[in-house]
Amino acid sequence: MDPDPALQALLAHYQSMPPVAAMQLQIAGADASSLRLRAPLAAHVNDKGCAFGGSLVSLMTLAGWGVATLALERAGLRADVFVAASEVRYRAPLFSDLEAVARADAAELAAFVAALRDGGRASLNLDARVPLPEGGSACDMRSRYVAIAKAA
Amino acid sequence: MDPDPALQALLAHYQSMPPVAAMQLQIAGADASSLRLRAPLAAHVNDKGCAFGGSLVSLMTLAGWGVATLALERAGLRADVFVAASEVRYRAPLFSDLEAVARADAAELAAFVAALRDGGRASLNLDARVPLPEGGSACDMRSRYVAIAKAA
Repeated sequence: MDPDPALQALLAHYQSMPPVAAMQLQIAGADASSLRLRAPLAAHVNDKGCAFGGSLVSLMTLAGWGVATLALERAGLRADVFVAASEVRYRAPLFSDLEAVARADAAELAAFVAALRDGGRASLNLDARVPLPEGGSACDMRSRYVAIAKAA
Repeated sequence: MDPDPALQALLAHYQSMPPVAAMQLQIAGADASSLRLRAPLAAHVNDKGCAFGGSLVSLMTLAGWGVATLALERAGLRADVFVAASEVRYRAPLFSDLEAVARADAAELAAFVAALRDGGRASLNLDARVPLPEGGSACDMRSRYVAIAKAA
């Protein structure tokens, strides 16, 4: 596990949600504008022996939520972050453990943090994908997240 | 539970998938071109006390998959059914148990079954939604599913 306290707190935050605890996810890496999550195929396998589409969307949605949440926390801001819309393309079956990578444009992420600080509300577009071990994507997703400042 | 053997078999099919078993879903109703699934909020609650977006997508995705799968089974056809693409709008937080309703156009569903029978491959567009108890939708989804005939 990553010793970064912000990531440890994020993992605890994820695991406090019953449906997320059931996903057995791990944080595999992060930088200022991206986050990588992993989960074992065994917990996400469907009737065709590959990863369930709903699990791919859940993991990508959580990765994007994590990017937005970490950026606000690093800026010392308290907000609820919601996913508002997603467009998903399932491209190929995944027969190995799941990894989801979400990435924001650095300038858009900075604008999102500034908008939340200034106006108490902000939205952010994020790309996420589940890579295939052999190259390419099992699944791609474009999402919009909305953050609403918590009362102090 | 519904005594319809096709629905009993569908429920067993769902529950054979580990991520779906964890969702604690029930079949709440079905007709020739629609399916209604339920799941308890307690298994799907997020950090804001409402239903996790990934759970909403998973339940809607399973409902749509069930509509396509039941139609093929009723026609005596064996196929793998995959979700290929989805567009999701999260409209309002849901603070009660989850219900997802997927519905196909009857003529499109008949064309889907005919195409699978004739060509061994077919695709189907489906609408799914999670209604709010107070009216309106927590979430709407438009998806495309693909079916590929299994070797006899």
